[in-house]
Amino acid sequence: MRGKLICLEGMDFTGKSTHMRHICHFLRQRGRRVIRTREPGGTRVATKLRRLLKTEAAEEILPQTELWLFFAARCQHIHHVIGPHLARGDWVVTDRFILSSYAYQGGGRGLNSKHIDALVAELPPLRPDLTLIFDIPPAVARLRASQGKPDRIEKEGDRFFRRVRTVYRSYARQHADCALIDATRPETQVRAEIAQHLAAL
Amino acid sequence: MRGKLICLEGMDFTGKSTHMRHICHFLRQRGRRVIRTREPGGTRVATKLRRLLKTEAAEEILPQTELWLFFAARCQHIHHVIGPHLARGDWVVTDRFILSSYAYQGGGRGLNSKHIDALVAELPPLRPDLTLIFDIPPAVARLRASQGKPDRIEKEGDRFFRRVRTVYRSYARQHADCALIDATRPETQVRAEIAQHLAAL
Repeated sequence: MRGKLICLEGMDFTGKSTHMRHICHFLRQRGRRVIRTREPGGTRVATKLRRLLKTEAAEEILPQTELWLFFAARCQHIHHVIGPHLARGDWVVTDRFILSSYAYQGGGRGLNSKHIDALVAELPPLRPDLTLIFDIPPAVARLRASQGKPDRIEKEGDRFFRRVRTVYRSYARQHADCALIDATRPETQVRAEIAQHLAAL
Repeated sequence: MRGKLICLEGMDFTGKSTHMRHICHFLRQRGRRVIRTREPGGTRVATKLRRLLKTEAAEEILPQTELWLFFAARCQHIHHVIGPHLARGDWVVTDRFILSSYAYQGGGRGLNSKHIDALVAELPPLRPDLTLIFDIPPAVARLRASQGKPDRIEKEGDRFFRRVRTVYRSYARQHADCALIDATRPETQVRAEIAQHLAAL
C-alpha cells in the first residue's frame, strides 16, 4: 500500500522543527515507517541548490530564478526520495512542499501563480494527504527571528510575510486536506491539535 | 543605441569556439564594443549551475530539472549581463542561448516545447538579432568528440543528437534572422560565410 505524504508549511519561526519531531515520533509509535525530509533538499543536487538559495549574497537572485531553482530541487526530491518512499509504503513528512512556492514566490515575490501551475503540471503527479500550515502573525515571526540568524529569504520585511500569510490562509480555507494551525498557542495545545489531524488519517 | 545580440548555436565539436574568436575579432575591428559570453554561465550563480549541469555524476539529473536549471541560469545571465550590455550599446556574442533549450531539452530529451514557450514568456523579453547555427552530422561530431573528454550531456548517443539537429534545422528554415552554417567545410569557407552575415547586420 502507498504510504502517506504529510507537508508542514507556514512561515519560519513557527516552531515547525519541534512539531516535525513530535509528528515523526507520533507516527512511529503507531508502527509507521517514517521518512523525515525537507525542501529544498533531500538529495545531493537539491541540497546544493538549497545552499545557493539560502546563502548566495554576492549576486542578486531574481524572483523568477528563485522559483525555477525551487522547482528543479523539488523535481529531484520527488523522483529520488518522496516517490520511491511512498511507493514502498513509508510515510513521508516534509518540511515545505509545493504550497511554499505559491506562498513565497507567488504571494511574497508577486510572481504569476498561473506560471507556478504550469511548473506543477510538469512535476511527477503527487498530492499531499495532509498539509499542516503553522500560522503566526508576521510581527511575532519577526520577534522570534531577531533571536536567530535569518537567511536570504527570512530577511524580507513584514509586508512580504503578510503576502505569504495571505496565500497560506486562503489556501487553507479552500482545501479540506489542509489545516491552519494557530501556532501562537502553547506547544501542548498545538501538539494536541496536530495529533487529532494525524489520527484522522 | 541598443547593441546587438548574436547567438552561436549548434552541437558541440562544430568549431564554435574558434568561430566565436573570429566573430569577436571581426566586430572589434569594425569599432564595436564586444562582450563574449556563454550559457549556462556569465554570472557567478549561473556558473555554479553550469558546473552542476555539466559535471554532476553521483545523482541522475532529470530532464525537467535540467530544463529549469538552464532557465534559472539564463534568467541571471539576461538580467545581470546581456541586458545591461545591450542597453549600453555593446554587442553581445553568446555561445548558446534560448534555442539550445528547444534543441537539447525539447528535441534531445523529448520535453514538451509548449512548456519551454511558457518559461521563455517569463524571461525578460529579448530577441537575438542574429543566430548562427553550426551544423554537422552527429557521426562527425562523435568522431571529433572521441578526441576529447565529453561532459554529462555530450555523452548522449547519436539518436539524441539527431533529434537535437532536427530542431536546429527546422528552426533555421522558419526564421529569417537565423543562418544554418555547414560546419563540415574548411574553416576559411565557414569564416567567409559568417563575415557575410555579420556585414548584413
